[in-house]
Amino acid sequence: MKIVYGDIKSGNCYKLALLCSQLHIDHDWREILVVNGETRTQEFLSINPAAQIPVVVLENGQVMTQSNAILNFFATNTHLMPADPMDRFRVQEWQFFEQYSHEPTIAVRRFIKRFLGLPAERQAEYDSKEAPGYRALEIMEKRLAKQEFLVGNSYSVADISLYAYTHVADEGGFDLSRFPGIGDWLQRVREQPGYLSM
Amino acid sequence: MKIVYGDIKSGNCYKLALLCSQLHIDHDWREILVVNGETRTQEFLSINPAAQIPVVVLENGQVMTQSNAILNFFATNTHLMPADPMDRFRVQEWQFFEQYSHEPTIAVRRFIKRFLGLPAERQAEYDSKEAPGYRALEIMEKRLAKQEFLVGNSYSVADISLYAYTHVADEGGFDLSRFPGIGDWLQRVREQPGYLSM
Repeated sequence: MKIVYGDIKSGNCYKLALLCSQLHIDHDWREILVVNGETRTQEFLSINPAAQIPVVVLENGQVMTQSNAILNFFATNTHLMPADPMDRFRVQEWQFFEQYSHEPTIAVRRFIKRFLGLPAERQAEYDSKEAPGYRALEIMEKRLAKQEFLVGNSYSVADISLYAYTHVADEGGFDLSRFPGIGDWLQRVREQPGYLSM
Repeated sequence: MKIVYGDIKSGNCYKLALLCSQLHIDHDWREILVVNGETRTQEFLSINPAAQIPVVVLENGQVMTQSNAILNFFATNTHLMPADPMDRFRVQEWQFFEQYSHEPTIAVRRFIKRFLGLPAERQAEYDSKEAPGYRALEIMEKRLAKQEFLVGNSYSVADISLYAYTHVADEGGFDLSRFPGIGDWLQRVREQPGYLSM
């Protein structure tokens, strides 16, 4: 059976838990707590020297890292991956946006506030990520004010990738009530078959 | 004809120039200089509100952003995209690593040093990115000390994505002579048909 190393409160890991639930992928979930330093043990570093989660270890021992790449691998040829090549491009376009502009602002503020308790020495970093985080949310709102899902007309892995940290953005001090399109979309994602809460 | 908005000295844009050269993709390259604020003009923001380059505008007017997603779109069904699904996963795994751990350290240090002249107010940020940048290079070295290319046994878009900022990492103060596997790989990339220098 596949082994998944993850921390369910990490959006990057939660993406994978949601995907496994929606695609009925059997797996053995092993909880790894970042805040307890469990990604920095010798044992874990021997699995992933980059000290990041989630990690999937396949039945043949192959190790997979990078949440969005893992999602795309398992979603290929399922209803969660669009068939049209341009739509498949849009999935990756949203996912690279997520890892470059969304996660480093929204998820990092959440980590600093919720998990570290907003210590004084991280206040400047926390503050510096407010404006770019709101810009990322504005880019999502622009799409979701007009369309039900991020890509094409149906729910896909792109929605999973962006939902993960967006639905808990308030824990990083972001006011989601400013974004009605995002609010409606969050509800649509929660209504999908096989939905699993964080 | 496709229009590409890019700055050839930006690794993210150079990736696309290299791909177009190697796949013989006709395009009209429009140079946009980040350091001159040309991604922040009203005209450019109307094309990409995220103020990032590269941007491709297709013949039908569709706008494409995110360098690695664009690369994968154009490389699909060519010799630059592996056929095996696990190899295709590895391509994306390297590309997400690039956008999350490599570009934000190695490319940002290069930008601060080479293009901004290492101003005093960015010194702390520059210093903070040295250790994580070297960690990213170590992860590449671990692979390239044993294998000729990043994925499988042949040159692919993964090599283009990672070559872009790695081959100019010295401009961000990184000493590449510590990484013989990377050094040999840089030379192999330069020897590929259709290679284009930055």
